[in-house]
Amino acid sequence: MRPTLTLTEAGRHQTLEELKAFLRIPSISAQPEHKEDVRAAAEWLKSALERAGLEHARLIEGEGHPLVAADWLHASGKPTVLFYGHYDVQPPDPLDEWQSAPFEPELRGENLYARGAADDKGPTLLWVKALEALIASSGELPVNVRVLCEGEEESNGEHIAQWLDEHASEIPSDAVIVCDTEMFAKDWPSITVGLRGIVYVEIEVRGARADLHSGQYGGTAPNAVMAAAEIVTALKDRDGCIRVNHFFDDVIAPSEEELAQWAALPFDEEAYLEEEIGSTSLTGEPGYSVLERVWARPTLEVHGIRGGYTGEGSKTVIPARATIKLSCRLVPGQIAGDIVRRLEDALKLATPAGVTASLTVLGSAPASLVDPSHPCLKLALETMSAHFPNPASFIRSGGAIPIVGKFQSTLKAPCILFGFGLPDDNLHAPNEKFYIPNFWRGMEVIADYLRRLAIHG
Amino acid sequence: MRPTLTLTEAGRHQTLEELKAFLRIPSISAQPEHKEDVRAAAEWLKSALERAGLEHARLIEGEGHPLVAADWLHASGKPTVLFYGHYDVQPPDPLDEWQSAPFEPELRGENLYARGAADDKGPTLLWVKALEALIASSGELPVNVRVLCEGEEESNGEHIAQWLDEHASEIPSDAVIVCDTEMFAKDWPSITVGLRGIVYVEIEVRGARADLHSGQYGGTAPNAVMAAAEIVTALKDRDGCIRVNHFFDDVIAPSEEELAQWAALPFDEEAYLEEEIGSTSLTGEPGYSVLERVWARPTLEVHGIRGGYTGEGSKTVIPARATIKLSCRLVPGQIAGDIVRRLEDALKLATPAGVTASLTVLGSAPASLVDPSHPCLKLALETMSAHFPNPASFIRSGGAIPIVGKFQSTLKAPCILFGFGLPDDNLHAPNEKFYIPNFWRGMEVIADYLRRLAIHG
Repeated sequence: MRPTLTLTEAGRHQTLEELKAFLRIPSISAQPEHKEDVRAAAEWLKSALERAGLEHARLIEGEGHPLVAADWLHASGKPTVLFYGHYDVQPPDPLDEWQSAPFEPELRGENLYARGAADDKGPTLLWVKALEALIASSGELPVNVRVLCEGEEESNGEHIAQWLDEHASEIPSDAVIVCDTEMFAKDWPSITVGLRGIVYVEIEVRGARADLHSGQYGGTAPNAVMAAAEIVTALKDRDGCIRVNHFFDDVIAPSEEELAQWAALPFDEEAYLEEEIGSTSLTGEPGYSVLERVWARPTLEVHGIRGGYTGEGSKTVIPARATIKLSCRLVPGQIAGDIVRRLEDALKLATPAGVTASLTVLGSAPASLVDPSHPCLKLALETMSAHFPNPASFIRSGGAIPIVGKFQSTLKAPCILFGFGLPDDNLHAPNEKFYIPNFWRGMEVIADYLRRLAIHG
Repeated sequence: MRPTLTLTEAGRHQTLEELKAFLRIPSISAQPEHKEDVRAAAEWLKSALERAGLEHARLIEGEGHPLVAADWLHASGKPTVLFYGHYDVQPPDPLDEWQSAPFEPELRGENLYARGAADDKGPTLLWVKALEALIASSGELPVNVRVLCEGEEESNGEHIAQWLDEHASEIPSDAVIVCDTEMFAKDWPSITVGLRGIVYVEIEVRGARADLHSGQYGGTAPNAVMAAAEIVTALKDRDGCIRVNHFFDDVIAPSEEELAQWAALPFDEEAYLEEEIGSTSLTGEPGYSVLERVWARPTLEVHGIRGGYTGEGSKTVIPARATIKLSCRLVPGQIAGDIVRRLEDALKLATPAGVTASLTVLGSAPASLVDPSHPCLKLALETMSAHFPNPASFIRSGGAIPIVGKFQSTLKAPCILFGFGLPDDNLHAPNEKFYIPNFWRGMEVIADYLRRLAIHG
């Protein structure tokens, strides 16, 4: 098909250099020592929006990291689209597993490697540059545009949610475009219409008053790390079944129609195991397909256990304390607060004698569903289909994008989750990358969608 | 009873200052970055032996940290006693739980707080100063004395064992005095005649190729930290029973007579739980008394699990790797090599689908028994009894002092384990301390014992 944008070689080079500059900023929102870097990324994004030709580019200050906003509202009588992205990134550790430094972007083949390349600086800059190209070529945009980006997506920050609760009426919009998801597979474009929620908790386990010598007390004193292991294996058994009472009570199963669509997707379980996961065997709840387990079943996953001696050499200590980081992915029907209460009840049953355990919620987000029958969604599917070798599908995603539900409830507008990442992008892991051909395609899709929306929207 | 030594106020002050200087050296043998500190402690001890009036004070170099040796062999026709101690210490972490800095000794009440105060710099300096006082008062020692100290006791180093294998014939001795144990209780002196051995292993667990996003892969990808928890709970169950096949096959139970002696000891289980351990409940193998569990039953204890995200805030990662540090305390009859093979077999059964686990031995030591009917042991018991309010007992200890078995096998001489530490000394834990009245008493006991040995030995 005819490209919507004219991207010259020099223009592409310049655009890639801009993306690299954005990626060099270590905007790790979860780590307080990177607070200034997070702000620098916000300032960088604000400047990029100004360069693109958007108006009123500004930082919105509040608790936590700033929001970045802008608009262009001169398409009288046309729909208004709100663009969302986030300029913060995950911590890069374990550092020694990166082939190139996480904040020194490196192009290898068709992929650009850096922390944040796919999540979410690449997909964010993609629509900024699409808007810039449209304004540069015609002096205007086909629809009205608003921008609202945040810097706390990776740290469960509340700033954008609080701001929307109070100010959503100031930014009326007909649709929200979110580029923070991935395609079902390379060349298989997709629009995500379901997202899992999450409850992230920290469990503090305390045994003896202080660490004890395992010679003197081995055989009689409680061991907090051992107790942590007992707790997590009591919450989820070796077969992958979650053993928390009433955990599944409120789960709304996907419709037969949705399950049938998923079964028709070109999913290769062997490639998934070998190429994406890189292990000898899949795990998880018996009786459900891989796509059901990831998209429509809740999880309980341990992210880390800290406690005892883990340095070089050996130390014969009976650990007095241990900390478990653990989350549950939630599916439609499940309420975070209910799940926390059920986890607390399960924790009481799971805690062995001689130790105490307490639970703190570090963050939560509800699961979200978008109505695929909305005209904006149908148009998005058509647009995606026009730019890729295969037709686009409506899919779900296992990850949480908490803001999707918040946009839908405060703006009363559907969220369109255009996915340009790929399943092997190593999100949240070492060697995160973005497939650059999708950067250019994504710009085309966004520009094309806005033009179609101006006609059909 | 009449003190053997004359300790003036000024002399005590000077001696305590010397101990503090010794304790200020962070001689952490398990951490390579402290290599020079370990050497500094060796040099300090060599100088202390020279100041005491011992001859041929020297460092013996080899693989690892140096040995410190000296002698005084002018008591013609009298027995020869070899003194052993170690000048290295455990790592001090967790640092934030220390009331005063671990390498800035602080006297609070009658206790001196510092890493190494009780294990083993205090008890080592105690006999050095006893020898110094004897030489200072009479110009000679009542028996011949040899010294052999090491700097790898806390890091499973092999230097002293290798050296003894090759050079034991050069240091013939009639008895070995080891001051690296504790009294049964305050005012209840004891000589330890049984020590547990140990096998310390590290288990490396590998799941997916790299850390994965728990949203994208939660429900299908193996989780290495979860697998680590499953492994350790499969090796030892919630009831404290070790589930390793054939683990107990070779255990030699203590005699009825020994069990009867232990039952007669003034053991207060409630105080042990509340004051020493500081927890709500004891754990361990059902069906055995506390003293049996600690002295005569093998253990399986997890010292730490490393893996996943354990920093501040939250990271939604499925960990690809985890490392378990784990040890088994061994009792007489159990052979380290056999236990390693049984652990390896159990690990194969315990490893869940989708992950691999491999085991590396970081160190091991056999259990040791000393014959309490040896004349040198009987004399030691009488001497201890003379200096404390209650008569001394033969007891066992749950900890390993690997060198005891090695001394007995290479020198064919009994080891006399005079204990001057107390059960609440916080060995290997924050706020390690030494009860200073036992420092002075210990000096008296050692001097008295050498005089008695000159007469009866």
